Amino acid sequence: MIEILDTTLRDGAQGEGVVFSLTDKLKLIRALDALGVDYIEAGNPGSNPKDMELFRFAAQELCLRHARLAAFGMTRRPGMKAGEEASLRAIAESGAHVASLVGKSDVRQVLEIVGTSRQENLRMIGDSVEELARQGMSVFFDAEHFFDGWGRDAQYAMETLLTAERAGAARLVLCDTNGGTMPEDLARIVAEVKGRVSVPVGIHCHNDCGLATAGTLRAVSAGAMQVQGTINGYGERCGNANLCEVLPNLALKMKMQVLPQGKISELAPTARLFSEVANLKMNERMPYVGRSAFAHKGGMHIDGVMKDHASFEHVEPEAVGNSRRILVSEVAGRSALMTKLRALAPELTRESATTRGILEHIKALEAEGYSFEDADGSLTLRILGALGKRREFFKVLDFHVFSRKPESPRNAQAYVKIAVEGQEEITADEGDGPVNALDRALRKALSRFYPVLNGMRLIDFKVRVVDVDGTASSVRVHIDSTDGSSVFSTVGVSSNIIEAAFVALTDSIECLLSAREERGT
Amino acid sequence: MIEILDTTLRDGAQGEGVVFSLTDKLKLIRALDALGVDYIEAGNPGSNPKDMELFRFAAQELCLRHARLAAFGMTRRPGMKAGEEASLRAIAESGAHVASLVGKSDVRQVLEIVGTSRQENLRMIGDSVEELARQGMSVFFDAEHFFDGWGRDAQYAMETLLTAERAGAARLVLCDTNGGTMPEDLARIVAEVKGRVSVPVGIHCHNDCGLATAGTLRAVSAGAMQVQGTINGYGERCGNANLCEVLPNLALKMKMQVLPQGKISELAPTARLFSEVANLKMNERMPYVGRSAFAHKGGMHIDGVMKDHASFEHVEPEAVGNSRRILVSEVAGRSALMTKLRALAPELTRESATTRGILEHIKALEAEGYSFEDADGSLTLRILGALGKRREFFKVLDFHVFSRKPESPRNAQAYVKIAVEGQEEITADEGDGPVNALDRALRKALSRFYPVLNGMRLIDFKVRVVDVDGTASSVRVHIDSTDGSSVFSTVGVSSNIIEAAFVALTDSIECLLSAREERGT
Repeated sequence: MIEILDTTLRDGAQGEGVVFSLTDKLKLIRALDALGVDYIEAGNPGSNPKDMELFRFAAQELCLRHARLAAFGMTRRPGMKAGEEASLRAIAESGAHVASLVGKSDVRQVLEIVGTSRQENLRMIGDSVEELARQGMSVFFDAEHFFDGWGRDAQYAMETLLTAERAGAARLVLCDTNGGTMPEDLARIVAEVKGRVSVPVGIHCHNDCGLATAGTLRAVSAGAMQVQGTINGYGERCGNANLCEVLPNLALKMKMQVLPQGKISELAPTARLFSEVANLKMNERMPYVGRSAFAHKGGMHIDGVMKDHASFEHVEPEAVGNSRRILVSEVAGRSALMTKLRALAPELTRESATTRGILEHIKALEAEGYSFEDADGSLTLRILGALGKRREFFKVLDFHVFSRKPESPRNAQAYVKIAVEGQEEITADEGDGPVNALDRALRKALSRFYPVLNGMRLIDFKVRVVDVDGTASSVRVHIDSTDGSSVFSTVGVSSNIIEAAFVALTDSIECLLSAREERGT
Repeated sequence: MIEILDTTLRDGAQGEGVVFSLTDKLKLIRALDALGVDYIEAGNPGSNPKDMELFRFAAQELCLRHARLAAFGMTRRPGMKAGEEASLRAIAESGAHVASLVGKSDVRQVLEIVGTSRQENLRMIGDSVEELARQGMSVFFDAEHFFDGWGRDAQYAMETLLTAERAGAARLVLCDTNGGTMPEDLARIVAEVKGRVSVPVGIHCHNDCGLATAGTLRAVSAGAMQVQGTINGYGERCGNANLCEVLPNLALKMKMQVLPQGKISELAPTARLFSEVANLKMNERMPYVGRSAFAHKGGMHIDGVMKDHASFEHVEPEAVGNSRRILVSEVAGRSALMTKLRALAPELTRESATTRGILEHIKALEAEGYSFEDADGSLTLRILGALGKRREFFKVLDFHVFSRKPESPRNAQAYVKIAVEGQEEITADEGDGPVNALDRALRKALSRFYPVLNGMRLIDFKVRVVDVDGTASSVRVHIDSTDGSSVFSTVGVSSNIIEAAFVALTDSIECLLSAREERGT
């Protein structure tokens, strides 16, 4: 049984662009508890009043089924008494079950950064652990810069661990704070430490060499029983060890018990929830949980994966809550498209005239520069259209867009005229650039008929040139939008960027309306 | 000496969303050659006519200083003669020095996917290697699914290698095709293979477990002398082994000779160039080369890093061409910028107030979303501007752009008013989309004063979203234009795509006029 400590809310929040509100943190704590991690390091109550508020709120409001909260903080300052150190008191008063107490294990940090003596640093560690243990907390000692410290003065580094152990620490966590230690060195040192302490050892890696996952796994093989990391690998610089890689590798590859039975299959949706809440674009190439992790593009690969999934999939995507995607692109040919077509019109055979007509239609669009690889919404609409099953929610009768040498934001204007079941609406709006103006005017006109569009939000907008012919090149506009529960991916192509965006925008509105209708909401 | 084969243009291009044009590929081949990789696997001439065109063009036009090109393809089909197999002929006719020949090493793939016999597969390998070697090519045999094949039938997997070796292969490359093999298994198998072949062994990993870098390094330690990977880890699913992680780990951590002396310090700008050309957002948390890799956010960390860089930096950022960032700003490639600055104003010292002012100015532009990696023309103009040396060839007094629901080509119109040395000109033109209309109208107005602009031609036009905020996102427009003898790369950023394009367009016109003036033509 490997114990998991998630530090997304503490160390992860140190990552560039990562900011969590109190509400965010509560949502994520619930999600981590549902996933079944053992410990959630939720913040630093001594240095951050918001984190103290979080712990207090959590103690009252959250009823965690599995996880226990950990409050993070440093050992007492030189010359202070542990019982009088405000940050230690904050940890004790947080109501958390665990204290994650970080102290210096690298003699250079002790002498040069903290500016105290070797002996006083050991006393700082011992006093602080003892004080929190005395208050009934389970104390995890985070040995900062442990591996660099080992390289400089292994005996001193070891002494910091032994001090914490004698003072009553429940875990000794070895931290590769600057992420520079090679996995084989990590493994060797973990094994040496294991032989000299009796308290369980934990491992805390950073990804500065791209080796945090490898290092964590080797540390486990060498005897570490607690793993620390973050969802999506958030964390400062290159991030912390990514639990979305570490957990499935431990569970599926190394056959170790992590998380409660069956929970590993909830990993991909959990990763996506974190990315949504952090408002950071997901790295879709992320192992196990990214959208591309089980996506197949090359024709030969699709053929192979259809005959035998294991050809190009090292595990079943469902095992981690992900799914296989066959990317519909020129390279892939017919078989991918057929899978999609069958889902929409099960009655069609591969050889029917309708099927051939639809394939021709999609091929013609691809020749124009369309790419449906990441635009499932638009592909569905095109197929439904070709089948005569596309419902017309609205017509856009006309639009004009104006843009001038900009002197201010909202420097573009759009006029639109639309019709819904014979009723016309004319309106206008302004925006940052012509596409934004058109987007706003369209949704303003349509929301009279479909108020649900007021809750629609664009979450990604991509432009790429498909044919290079100077400024008259064709451009492909790709849009991801959401109604809060689903994501719709749509695409438009034209030599006029306004038209390309117009197609992707109206497709996304149609997808949303049609999804709402299906759900009957 | 570890040999590097870059397959960004071949296997990397299989990644979701990765598309390279012929111009892109030529630009990237030059960059890889400048970086000093040994081999560039540039495409599959037998299956893709565009790749054949690339190899032909490269053979005529490119003068590579270090790298050799490799053409990729499969072994002959069952029952065919190698000499009559079109795809092998395409490889031979590509003009590439190396043939990267992929064959099946997993008996299950042979029997179930290819549907041929064990013996015929061995003959397919032997014949194909022999045929290409006979034509004078250096043949690298890519043993597909090698590690899975080893698990299933190690003797057969080994036999495929020995067959290729006997037929004259120059390298035996062990491929972890579905990316599922654990690094320790990779290392063990590489070591076993090494003991049984005399030809050098290569390693080709995929990142499906987040362990491609770790696996590659362990394979090298176990005796592999060729490493295959891609810049930024592009490649299908979770990508290939990322050379931006592998190369610095080999060079800086394992102290091995990779790339020519000093070249590792050009890695970060190279990574960024690839991301620009692929029009994919860089993963800024990427080890070594990402913007966040040496960025310090936590107060304690900043303090630590100021007192001693090694506190939170495992290597010096400059070693890989990256830079430290405190707070939220940086100058990408500061030393590159100094080089540029010295060329334009040799009198400036690094520490002068003017130099610092210019660095601040560029930094501010970068914070807005500007990127000068691939926009030397615009960078020169900005520096000349800051030095008070920028000559004003023209002023744009006003412009309006109109675009409407398109029913025909030339569906956008632009009005412009410009002035050259006090003389005004008002004109208009139409175009395919608003940017094209504006481009045409501007050059029409200016060509009265500068007839040379009639010969100006846009050769590349790229749009990318830099800040995601729906359709109000900032966009960066990048333009390459030419007067027939030089190429000018320029860039503009704005939340209004028309304005971003306007800046890039006027920059490109100014670059051309200023180059003409310097040349006195």
